[in-house]
Amino acid sequence: MDDAHDVSVTIEGTSMDDESSTDNAFSAETGRASVHPPKQASAEQKVKKGKETTLDAEALLLAATLVLDAKVGRNLDYILGEKYVKSYLWYNSAYLRWALYFCIAFNLSLAIFEEPAVPNAAIPYWGTMIMEFFCLSYFTFRLLHAFYFQYSKVFIKDAKNIVVLMVILLTILDMICYIIWINVAPDTHPVRWSRPLRPLFIINFPDGKQIRRAFRNIRRTVPDIMNVLFLFLLSILLFGLLALKLFYKREITYPSGQPYFRNYFDCIWDLYVLVTTANNPDVMMPAYDKSNWFALFFVIYLIICLYIFMSIVLATIYNNYKKNLKNEIKAAVFLKRQRLAKAFDLLKVKRGNEEVLTYSTWKQLVKFILPGKSDVHTDLLMKILDQDNSNVLNKKSFLNLSDLLHVKLTEVKDRQTLLEKYFPSVYNHYVSERFKLIVRHRFFRYFFDLLILLNAVFIAIDYDLADWFFLSIFTFEILCKLYVLGGKEFLLRFWNIFDVFVIGAAFIATIVEKALGSTNKELNTLDILLVLRVMRLIKIFGSIKRFKVILLTLVNIGPSIITYGGVIFVFYYFFAIIGMEIFAGYISYYGYTVQDSSKLFCGNLNLNNTAFYHEHYCNNNFNDILKAMVVMFELTVVNQWHVITSGFVAVTSQVARLYFFAFHICCVVIVLNIFTAFILEAFILEYTLQTVPRLESVVESKIKELGLGIGMKPKTHSIQGPSGDKIDLMEGEVLPDMDELDGNKEDEENSDDENLPDLSKEKGLKFHLRKNNRKKVEVLLQQMFQGELGDEEEGPKSFSDVENYQRSRKLTLEELT
Amino acid sequence: MDDAHDVSVTIEGTSMDDESSTDNAFSAETGRASVHPPKQASAEQKVKKGKETTLDAEALLLAATLVLDAKVGRNLDYILGEKYVKSYLWYNSAYLRWALYFCIAFNLSLAIFEEPAVPNAAIPYWGTMIMEFFCLSYFTFRLLHAFYFQYSKVFIKDAKNIVVLMVILLTILDMICYIIWINVAPDTHPVRWSRPLRPLFIINFPDGKQIRRAFRNIRRTVPDIMNVLFLFLLSILLFGLLALKLFYKREITYPSGQPYFRNYFDCIWDLYVLVTTANNPDVMMPAYDKSNWFALFFVIYLIICLYIFMSIVLATIYNNYKKNLKNEIKAAVFLKRQRLAKAFDLLKVKRGNEEVLTYSTWKQLVKFILPGKSDVHTDLLMKILDQDNSNVLNKKSFLNLSDLLHVKLTEVKDRQTLLEKYFPSVYNHYVSERFKLIVRHRFFRYFFDLLILLNAVFIAIDYDLADWFFLSIFTFEILCKLYVLGGKEFLLRFWNIFDVFVIGAAFIATIVEKALGSTNKELNTLDILLVLRVMRLIKIFGSIKRFKVILLTLVNIGPSIITYGGVIFVFYYFFAIIGMEIFAGYISYYGYTVQDSSKLFCGNLNLNNTAFYHEHYCNNNFNDILKAMVVMFELTVVNQWHVITSGFVAVTSQVARLYFFAFHICCVVIVLNIFTAFILEAFILEYTLQTVPRLESVVESKIKELGLGIGMKPKTHSIQGPSGDKIDLMEGEVLPDMDELDGNKEDEENSDDENLPDLSKEKGLKFHLRKNNRKKVEVLLQQMFQGELGDEEEGPKSFSDVENYQRSRKLTLEELT
Repeated sequence: MDDAHDVSVTIEGTSMDDESSTDNAFSAETGRASVHPPKQASAEQKVKKGKETTLDAEALLLAATLVLDAKVGRNLDYILGEKYVKSYLWYNSAYLRWALYFCIAFNLSLAIFEEPAVPNAAIPYWGTMIMEFFCLSYFTFRLLHAFYFQYSKVFIKDAKNIVVLMVILLTILDMICYIIWINVAPDTHPVRWSRPLRPLFIINFPDGKQIRRAFRNIRRTVPDIMNVLFLFLLSILLFGLLALKLFYKREITYPSGQPYFRNYFDCIWDLYVLVTTANNPDVMMPAYDKSNWFALFFVIYLIICLYIFMSIVLATIYNNYKKNLKNEIKAAVFLKRQRLAKAFDLLKVKRGNEEVLTYSTWKQLVKFILPGKSDVHTDLLMKILDQDNSNVLNKKSFLNLSDLLHVKLTEVKDRQTLLEKYFPSVYNHYVSERFKLIVRHRFFRYFFDLLILLNAVFIAIDYDLADWFFLSIFTFEILCKLYVLGGKEFLLRFWNIFDVFVIGAAFIATIVEKALGSTNKELNTLDILLVLRVMRLIKIFGSIKRFKVILLTLVNIGPSIITYGGVIFVFYYFFAIIGMEIFAGYISYYGYTVQDSSKLFCGNLNLNNTAFYHEHYCNNNFNDILKAMVVMFELTVVNQWHVITSGFVAVTSQVARLYFFAFHICCVVIVLNIFTAFILEAFILEYTLQTVPRLESVVESKIKELGLGIGMKPKTHSIQGPSGDKIDLMEGEVLPDMDELDGNKEDEENSDDENLPDLSKEKGLKFHLRKNNRKKVEVLLQQMFQGELGDEEEGPKSFSDVENYQRSRKLTLEELT
Repeated sequence: MDDAHDVSVTIEGTSMDDESSTDNAFSAETGRASVHPPKQASAEQKVKKGKETTLDAEALLLAATLVLDAKVGRNLDYILGEKYVKSYLWYNSAYLRWALYFCIAFNLSLAIFEEPAVPNAAIPYWGTMIMEFFCLSYFTFRLLHAFYFQYSKVFIKDAKNIVVLMVILLTILDMICYIIWINVAPDTHPVRWSRPLRPLFIINFPDGKQIRRAFRNIRRTVPDIMNVLFLFLLSILLFGLLALKLFYKREITYPSGQPYFRNYFDCIWDLYVLVTTANNPDVMMPAYDKSNWFALFFVIYLIICLYIFMSIVLATIYNNYKKNLKNEIKAAVFLKRQRLAKAFDLLKVKRGNEEVLTYSTWKQLVKFILPGKSDVHTDLLMKILDQDNSNVLNKKSFLNLSDLLHVKLTEVKDRQTLLEKYFPSVYNHYVSERFKLIVRHRFFRYFFDLLILLNAVFIAIDYDLADWFFLSIFTFEILCKLYVLGGKEFLLRFWNIFDVFVIGAAFIATIVEKALGSTNKELNTLDILLVLRVMRLIKIFGSIKRFKVILLTLVNIGPSIITYGGVIFVFYYFFAIIGMEIFAGYISYYGYTVQDSSKLFCGNLNLNNTAFYHEHYCNNNFNDILKAMVVMFELTVVNQWHVITSGFVAVTSQVARLYFFAFHICCVVIVLNIFTAFILEAFILEYTLQTVPRLESVVESKIKELGLGIGMKPKTHSIQGPSGDKIDLMEGEVLPDMDELDGNKEDEENSDDENLPDLSKEKGLKFHLRKNNRKKVEVLLQQMFQGELGDEEEGPKSFSDVENYQRSRKLTLEELT
């Protein structure tokens, strides 16, 4: 039996996230054999032996793991044997994952301590090497762990694993080289050339799914942009030729006396910079001063190369982004379904003509998935999945399981505050109830909004005396809310956390300042906290509906923005390390009033008379990773990047332009446009979905039908459970709706944000159905696609098939525009 | 009878383009009564009198006008009476329209001659006033003309007319004021304050449909952006407060010694400029030099306000643009259908249960619409419309008429070259045929592509000797093509025109230069033409498929780009005139080496020690309209706009910032983003439509079915015409397909661009079906929407209804992303 399992086949559909196995025939080869005959047979044998006895524990474990995979969206291959699955679960445990995150971050942060180090943070090379070796060891362990529970064929075919392995080996090789080099010839500026590879760990471990997805997006988009970029660069070359012919005989010079369009290479460079607008109108002025007509050349050039070509680059990227998004959504839905279907196959029994999952199996499965939940809870979940009240689950119902697991279900005790639990008599006293009513009232909120406004005005006019008053009244507000909502509920709201942070920090800082009696000019953290308090004004605007849409969208797309932050960080790190190797030490900041001749002109006489020195850019250097990162950011913002470039060209050679050009193409033209495309799409989706009739999954409609959501009144007070027992949902009588008492009916649509509905008044088990606009866009899109699919359709198995998976439909105007 | 007509009601559906009547109840009131009972009765009476006699000439005229309206997409209201319709047709005649365009352009160009005039172009004020008065008279005439054929109620309710009238009156008032002012107090700098209103004529005459549509788009978008802009400006205010608190105590200065973040107003200004990236990183450096941590403030600020907010502004605009586009398409389709339905109602007779249009009516109608076409032509058109071969047209078929009229139909004689017509024996001689074959061969093209490349290389390495060779061989190429294709066909291709222009101009310039023997350094127009010749390289890239998509898209969206150019011109003109009134004369360009003290520092001592003077920006001034336009463009490109602003602030006051701020918000934040949105959408649409199975209208499928397109072989040699005659489509035998001879089958998809199919070999009447990718996107979208509509659905009558016109459909993933 166990042997049979070990030869069993890998999970299908894994290719979604895994590029390497996507594009080769391997996944197709192994993927289809997934419904494992001996396994299936064994399940059915069990049933025949003793009807509805305890199921094979192994099958349960496997099925439960598959269900959890579907819920979380994991997509790693593993061997379907008990010990491998257990190993896989351990691999996914929070400890090991966070250890990995820590090691990756630590490994990256070594650049702070390595030569050229951040001032006062330098550690000898052997010190950082030991730390790096420690990180590499953990990476190797992680890799071996994955190797253990995967088929070696699958493991090796996965490009991610190969990349990680290669980077580890290269790093070790580099370390050895460096040790030899530095001991043999320490004066020759030894290079740690493997350091730019470090960010690859972020992308290539299976845990960095989001970032990898963004990178996949970039990779898929690049070929399409290449065509546009090629034409774009070609037109720059042509315009360069034109400019050369136009200007080279005229002996024009720049105000600084530099030659103006005298050789082809400079022409192209100046025109490329012009397309980034960084040297406009300076590059035009000398010719324009000569003759007004020359302005026409630059105007035409900018219209074609900047306004048209750059828009087309954005359009191409945006178009690809949308296409990819669509495919990712489809792939995710199919992956989920395939895992659930596999789990179902492991547990199913034959009942007449149908293959179903029995109530007892369900009960055991839930024990695995949601340990420690009551029977009522289990029964209720089944009740909701079981669309036709047959007391068994068919495949179609079972495929909704992961949606159901995403809906939060709480019991009364979970919703009570600590005070209510331990001092119910005090907390539920008449006075306390009155007080709670007041705090929950919207005038309470209005009052404090008004105070925030007042505070802002006082800060603006620099009137400090009222500070103590505001500080204490805002503290009082926080305490009130904490009392009424309880800690858990309180911390769920972003603005509450923000308030606690700002007010708390201000409180402490004020006390410290008073205690020390310092009026130190440098210490104005207090001022900052003061102003952060003003940021709470945004909270007020958040309650006005027209702004709310925008702010909500911002909050919703926040996490994804951080993903793109990660992508940009990868590029920054890569370029920063390379920049440090090339440019470190050439330019330093010594202030601009030094007399010491070795420190004149940022310590480099070549910078004399350059715009770089003139504009006081000496601090824009590559002398440590932090400075380099700031330079990267400045280059991303683009303005004056040619001046920064010119500084480094002055201290090295013209070839340095290549580095800055490469950075601009990679980070600004490609990555930044992808970022814009992402925001564009995310914003438009959020915006559109808010105007669309509420989308609900099968699970949600069922919950609504049974009236089991928070704030809903069930139609029946008890529901017949699958086991035949009655599930008591309500205890006591239905209280009048709190919203009605508050008179809050009119602004119902923003009640979940601004008002404080009293959850503890909700009796029994209740599902938390989120408002439409609070759902993640990705989840919504998945649901939408699920709605389009057939009930049991599991879709194509590999990503490239998903890309071509078109549902035949007539093209419509709505779809296109 | 005539009386009855005069009381008849206006055409419905006019409100599409006409905002004023859109939003009020008026159009709804009159719109629905459009099917004019007496008219209908009269047509039927006619039929009853003598079956199928000559139809009422008036009804025919009205119907023909309505059909032409539908074809061209005109949407002006007019009274359905004969004399009014004739007046309307005259109103739309090319002469009167071009006279209007001329007057508008002339009126705008007066700014060149008025004070402050372009150097050497100044005309005394009474001179320009006489010219302006002439333009105004024509505008008034045009207005009265429209008033004549419209109901006065309709005319008055139309905001466009009111605006034109108001502008005319204000201008006259202004002229009177100016005359008085300049004669009473000529030294007080009299102001012609009505001049910024001039561009309103472009928008508000019915002929500027495209530009008005773009403006409507802007107007509909602005309310939505306002919310985002408000939050954006608010966050700048907050960050300004934060910056003030952070920096004002620290006594930091800019390198120039200016104070750094010392007062709130400057804080906000600097931060606003930073969001345009124009002063990055300069604004950060002083603080960054003080402490590295201050960089964080600017990084966070830029991420929030630049990368996130500005993307959201673009997203909002883009989203609105798409929504508007959809509605415009729908409105245009409905308008077309309504006009055609109206025309049908005028001409229909009852046949059994059906209302139809008979063959004889059809014949008369076509005589009106397409005068001078043969009967065969007329019959063929009917054949194609008449889907069920019933020899009469029902309403459903008739609604396709405007699509049919858009398909070009040519007869053999139209496709012959002039040479073939007049010297057939020479032109069709064996040698000539051989020669034509050679020219049409793709190796002929490849050969000249190669020469272009060679030429480019020679130009790049500045080798002039081969010039004559290239010039003559390219001239030879043009002559060959001209001989083979004939003039008409030759000029249809963009690259041919380009070639003729470049080569012809180079030829003339070379001869002139040789003749004059001048080696004048200034005269290098020849060089430019040389390089323009290199631009033909793009032609080569245009024949590579991957680049072709991009170039085709560019060519296709070209005309619309010009529309947006018009929009931007309107804003430029408005701001330029105002700028001239405010800033003219303060700054002048005298070169930077003058000694004369009155000419130092651009003639204004206030500019001493400013960045404006230091960077040699003196030519960026408002001393005449052309200079002002260049400044406008520079401000649009954004970079260094704060330096330009600072110059004008230095010579006037801080308030000048308001002008530049307003320009930035209007032209850059709003108009430029709309332009980007437009390119984004146009590009994505073009791109998507090229991958989609060919969309064809009903008309096109019918043409294909009958094999009547260019390059198609008809299935039958003659078709039974509706009159019972046979229509002979083919003369003689079908020749072997030219493409096959050429071996061009493999690159069929680009045959319409690169190769030269021999049209004269196509016998008989043939339709020119354009390749999918050469159709205008708007036409495609209209067809798509028509395909979705019911056969006779005429849709809602007013634009606001169209906006809410939703076809009930489930939301799908495809549609959303």
